[in-house]
Amino acid sequence: MSRPVQIAVIGAAEGEPGALADAEEVGRRLAEAGAVVICGGRGGVMEAASKGAKAAGGIAIGVLPGSDPDEANEHVAYVVATGVGQARNLAVVGSGQAVIAIDGHWGTLSEIAFARKLGKPVFALRSWELQHRTERELGIAEAETPAEAVEAALAAVGS
Amino acid sequence: MSRPVQIAVIGAAEGEPGALADAEEVGRRLAEAGAVVICGGRGGVMEAASKGAKAAGGIAIGVLPGSDPDEANEHVAYVVATGVGQARNLAVVGSGQAVIAIDGHWGTLSEIAFARKLGKPVFALRSWELQHRTERELGIAEAETPAEAVEAALAAVGS
Amino acid sequence: MSRPVQIAVIGAAEGEPGALADAEEVGRRLAEAGAVVICGGRGGVMEAASKGAKAAGGIAIGVLPGSDPDEANEHVAYVVATGVGQARNLAVVGSGQAVIAIDGHWGTLSEIAFARKLGKPVFALRSWELQHRTERELGIAEAETPAEAVEAALAAVGS
Amino acid sequence: MSRPVQIAVIGAAEGEPGALADAEEVGRRLAEAGAVVICGGRGGVMEAASKGAKAAGGIAIGVLPGSDPDEANEHVAYVVATGVGQARNLAVVGSGQAVIAIDGHWGTLSEIAFARKLGKPVFALRSWELQHRTERELGIAEAETPAEAVEAALAAVGS
Repeated sequence: MSRPVQIAVIGAAEGEPGALADAEEVGRRLAEAGAVVICGGRGGVMEAASKGAKAAGGIAIGVLPGSDPDEANEHVAYVVATGVGQARNLAVVGSGQAVIAIDGHWGTLSEIAFARKLGKPVFALRSWELQHRTERELGIAEAETPAEAVEAALAAVGS
Repeated sequence: MSRPVQIAVIGAAEGEPGALADAEEVGRRLAEAGAVVICGGRGGVMEAASKGAKAAGGIAIGVLPGSDPDEANEHVAYVVATGVGQARNLAVVGSGQAVIAIDGHWGTLSEIAFARKLGKPVFALRSWELQHRTERELGIAEAETPAEAVEAALAAVGS
Repeated sequence: MSRPVQIAVIGAAEGEPGALADAEEVGRRLAEAGAVVICGGRGGVMEAASKGAKAAGGIAIGVLPGSDPDEANEHVAYVVATGVGQARNLAVVGSGQAVIAIDGHWGTLSEIAFARKLGKPVFALRSWELQHRTERELGIAEAETPAEAVEAALAAVGS
Repeated sequence: MSRPVQIAVIGAAEGEPGALADAEEVGRRLAEAGAVVICGGRGGVMEAASKGAKAAGGIAIGVLPGSDPDEANEHVAYVVATGVGQARNLAVVGSGQAVIAIDGHWGTLSEIAFARKLGKPVFALRSWELQHRTERELGIAEAETPAEAVEAALAAVGS
């Protein structure tokens, strides 16, 4: 199979400036490495990651909650308008071989949870801190910088 | 509207004995208070909560991931077979006016996240510990006992 | 298993008077036979079927597209608020052992299609007429009256 | 917005030879016109349309029912693994500005229904024949050849 690696980038629609800068750099670095960015297709972190990917000549695919492709941000190359509301969070992480979480809120947490449920490795940039009552190793690696997150995600998927 | 209160009870399909006992008590206490239990319809905590509700003469509704109603546990009174896989987690918490989380793993975490995204109050019995980077008040109240969780959930929905 | 039979009743939110009267009679007859009505939870045919079931002392379960249980019609006994938009049509027919289609439009057609995809028998009261290019036997039986539709649906599920 | 036109191509996973040849030609012609093919990502008509698009240097996006991107056929350029089962049919047609239906069975019918529910124009190549009881104009145009279907679909979206 000659398909490029797909990495999901998740985070809030109302990202703060630091998160947006990080997301844009993550998108750019993924594109530079030849990976496709999968995101939720809307604003904030999703838009910044799409913008970074596009600026580097790469591809971002926006997976929207609604049925109207025009709701995607302008940097997305292709749009999947799922129509299943917040259940599209499952589609976002299902479509990435690994997941990079940047900041984020409840929607992002649902995506981290689904990603781990599906066994996908998650790399977190200043995102949620989780503690399970009995399990130590949660499969979520914290990264300090966008470069570190991208490098670790690509290494995890053998790319 | 004369509909009874509906409370979602969430937790793992492979609950440990303590969690199962708690879930059964939660189900029983909700039923005794006239509330309907909404759950994921399968085994473990879902089954124990259903069993408790039924034993007290109450109703548990099982909201399944698959399309086969026969996959529901035997204590569920009515079955909704969604066919949308893990996206049914959104349906489980959407159907409760409040949510009681017991122990649980990634699926439960996705439900807690969706519940809070929808603004539903969550009451946790030895479940995930979460820390958001900037937000203090997460809307998740920890309970020490099934009685406390049920009492708080019913109070939160004005019942 | 001692669960009651569940029959899905589908049709448009803007049903015409004849369809509404039929839906109410279908709901009533199902309830009189001890069957639970599964419907989309909103207005029109869904509401009429719920009203009929309730009037006969039976149970209708409303499976909503949105995440707000308050969107259900007032005759629904229990509500599942799926949050997955029109994908809830899959949940409605998945939850019935047989399906009765009354009049209806595109949403109803999607439900008939999903019902048959899942292998559920469909009984149609003045609903869509379908012709497949190569297959003769589509598994959709036309009924002339509500009584006939209900009788055939219950017979099909061995009730 | 400089995004390319997206057209959904739908049909059965077990397409007969004539349907497969048509699907491949539809995919090729769409790609030649610069349009992106959206499909269900699996075999049969979905695979043939993807193959045609790829052979012409174009892009097919596979929108899968499951959560495993590896279930996509080899001709798909990018994969969205929705995890929502047959509810992904809503995502397929929601992502196209117009829909071309080739042959097909119940899944295809659910997609035609959702497409029309969303107001998308449908172009049918030897697919289902539908008759609504009161509505004459269903918004489904029959095409005799792949060329005609593609031309009409592109004209409908102003491309």
